[in-house]
Amino acid sequence: MPKTTQTSSSTTFTTYQDEWVGHVVYHSRLPNGLHVVSVPLPDRLSVMAVLSLRVGSRYEDDRQAGVAHLIEHLVFKGTHTRPTSRDVVLPIEGVGGILNANTSREMTNYWGQVPFQHVERLLDVLFDMVMNPLMREEDVEHEKAIIIEEINASLDMPDEVAGLAAMALLHPGHPLGRDIAGTRETVRALTREDVLAFMQTFYGPQNGVLAVAGRVEHEDVVAWAQALSAEWQGGAGKQPFPAQPLPAGLHVQCIHRDIEQVQLVMGVRTVPERHPDQYPLLLLNALLGDGMASRLFLQVREQLGLAYHIGSYLSFGSDFGEMTIEAGVDPANVMLALEAIASEVRNIVAEGPTPEEVIFAREYVTGRLLLGLESGMRAAGWYVTQLLQGVSPLLSPSDVLAALAAVQAEDIQRVAQTYLTPSNMVLVLVGPVGDAPQLSPPLLEERLMTWLA
Amino acid sequence: MPKTTQTSSSTTFTTYQDEWVGHVVYHSRLPNGLHVVSVPLPDRLSVMAVLSLRVGSRYEDDRQAGVAHLIEHLVFKGTHTRPTSRDVVLPIEGVGGILNANTSREMTNYWGQVPFQHVERLLDVLFDMVMNPLMREEDVEHEKAIIIEEINASLDMPDEVAGLAAMALLHPGHPLGRDIAGTRETVRALTREDVLAFMQTFYGPQNGVLAVAGRVEHEDVVAWAQALSAEWQGGAGKQPFPAQPLPAGLHVQCIHRDIEQVQLVMGVRTVPERHPDQYPLLLLNALLGDGMASRLFLQVREQLGLAYHIGSYLSFGSDFGEMTIEAGVDPANVMLALEAIASEVRNIVAEGPTPEEVIFAREYVTGRLLLGLESGMRAAGWYVTQLLQGVSPLLSPSDVLAALAAVQAEDIQRVAQTYLTPSNMVLVLVGPVGDAPQLSPPLLEERLMTWLA
Repeated sequence: MPKTTQTSSSTTFTTYQDEWVGHVVYHSRLPNGLHVVSVPLPDRLSVMAVLSLRVGSRYEDDRQAGVAHLIEHLVFKGTHTRPTSRDVVLPIEGVGGILNANTSREMTNYWGQVPFQHVERLLDVLFDMVMNPLMREEDVEHEKAIIIEEINASLDMPDEVAGLAAMALLHPGHPLGRDIAGTRETVRALTREDVLAFMQTFYGPQNGVLAVAGRVEHEDVVAWAQALSAEWQGGAGKQPFPAQPLPAGLHVQCIHRDIEQVQLVMGVRTVPERHPDQYPLLLLNALLGDGMASRLFLQVREQLGLAYHIGSYLSFGSDFGEMTIEAGVDPANVMLALEAIASEVRNIVAEGPTPEEVIFAREYVTGRLLLGLESGMRAAGWYVTQLLQGVSPLLSPSDVLAALAAVQAEDIQRVAQTYLTPSNMVLVLVGPVGDAPQLSPPLLEERLMTWLA
Repeated sequence: MPKTTQTSSSTTFTTYQDEWVGHVVYHSRLPNGLHVVSVPLPDRLSVMAVLSLRVGSRYEDDRQAGVAHLIEHLVFKGTHTRPTSRDVVLPIEGVGGILNANTSREMTNYWGQVPFQHVERLLDVLFDMVMNPLMREEDVEHEKAIIIEEINASLDMPDEVAGLAAMALLHPGHPLGRDIAGTRETVRALTREDVLAFMQTFYGPQNGVLAVAGRVEHEDVVAWAQALSAEWQGGAGKQPFPAQPLPAGLHVQCIHRDIEQVQLVMGVRTVPERHPDQYPLLLLNALLGDGMASRLFLQVREQLGLAYHIGSYLSFGSDFGEMTIEAGVDPANVMLALEAIASEVRNIVAEGPTPEEVIFAREYVTGRLLLGLESGMRAAGWYVTQLLQGVSPLLSPSDVLAALAAVQAEDIQRVAQTYLTPSNMVLVLVGPVGDAPQLSPPLLEERLMTWLA
């Protein structure tokens, strides 16, 4: 990736020029530690900005479960100069903009989009929220009630229940396996002191990245960020408890619900972000279960007609990774669907992909990556995780495309053999399984071992 | 809206220039009746295209319920030159593109996105799907099973159950009130002959619009469309059974489910697309329940802490319209939440908006509209509905913004008084309501009448 470095009065700019994708990415680091990234898209009418912090649910101990997500809610409740939630949101929504946030296991992102004329106002609100939230006692109590309704809503969605249960099996007893929102019990027990202590550790410029994409100039973004974060300090954060390996053996769980379908999630542990196996895994996922030309879609849906929804998904974290296969099926067809999924897994492990599939998967992943980068948000976010994880030099989209181009059929088969094994696997069923004796975990384990052998 | 017309060898181009939004829209009509719209966005890496037909679930009689949606599935199963679903999808996903479709009550849309070099291939696949599907007997039977799983999945989602029940109350006994997918019973009974007869009536260039946005030139789009649709004829369609007025009186339904939350949907009937009341309704919706600065969000969530999800939504059809207010609440708080929602409705009816709210709502709706148009899909789709409904002259984004700018506080209060009345209202509750005697429909009706009076 071509790269140039220049120095202005107070910061060093690094410019990444990615000819393939057409974007130019500018990167600076402010004296207070904050990374600033911009992607000028001069033809756009809008600007998107995301202020991200290296903190999420995995940084909590069991008692604190849910505090990172509670803080993400609370910063919308008011700041010293914008004392109500209406005061926080109105400057952005009042110009037709969007203001939102999300919490993952490893990151908290505050983001917005506005017509380009209002970019300074958006940055002002984002920095104000994370630097000066009021965090009133009554707001903490109030927001806990709202989050309990958020948890209740997810408990009423069978696919979310299945996904959460699979994560818990993939990371037993570890914060990475918990619902990001915490449980109703842990949320009820959180206090304002928990909130303030947690923020004190993690909320500061040393732990953050501002990324902006749209009709802006990098020098302006740096100047605004510098002015707005001048009083902001600290936030060195701390290292989380490392991910632990999955205990060997197949782990199966059945959760009874009186509903129409059974939601299936089969999961395996893989590798962290930027592990070399990530690239063959991306191609494996594409040809196995991502999209309408994938093996699972063609076999389980098109050939056998067993599911409307069937697909596979990847997630890469700083020291862990997961791949899941998910489907919703008729309770009478659970065994047929499981056998069909296991059969596709066994085939790719035993025989690897065809040469045509390797080409397809490479084109598919490459094309989706480039189409995705047209979105201002994705362009803004591309370098955020890398900067928070201290990656150097930064990987550009072209670097990733080059790595994907080098993947061969044998690499794909090798990662399938390494990760898609029964001893590295969990399975969750959510639905009317209580009255079906053949859907007991021991029997499902036995069948799956046979089908995958 | 500035407009110029020019004629090439076989078609007349109309060019709409919308300076405010920055897009130029080209419109042609082919000799076979097909409308062709393009929005050149020369800086984009991709092209999006949508081929839309004026047909959806409202064009079905009760026995045919679900056939429009079944056809939307079946065209992916193979064509004369692409005999399998893999053959249909692979040309698009094999270059990293997206191919998808959706069916609404009034329209069926086939759409895709590809890197711009592959636009001809995308158009080739889209026209092939709608012009030459194989519609094999076994594909019909097979796809019915998949759609029944799609219906089962929606029956397991409480918010979808509530939304469908509210639509049924808003359009009692009318195809507009039915699930677009039909019921499991009607889908099971559909035959290949139903499919072919329905397609024969509605699938043809006289009933369609092709819209393309991205790195393309209009003359090329017209030439491709003309070549690809040369053999396509007919499809005049027919008029649907008109929407019927909502029988006067408040209609309440409680649906029991053993779940954590109660999903509430309150609905009213409003006006069709392009009725002058649409513009004050857009502002009413914004200030009442759209976004985090709206009255319902600030009162029900921020003030009272009763719901994580609370919002209001508009839908405009060719001869009908609806507004709904939706929330998920703790079963113990249903009455409190309903009273709070009713109180906000009564306030806006009795007192209208504040001058500040009128400004806010106008900026909010204007800004969201402009941000939305950055998306290739929205830009591509802007004129599709209008062309299918025969609107002339076409309304540009600027025309809509001008209409919104003219809305006054008294217009907003007037539409609130006209449509947000108990005699034009339905209410659905889905959740653990069976064991709560105070949640009976008669009692809920009585309370709501009191709160809204």
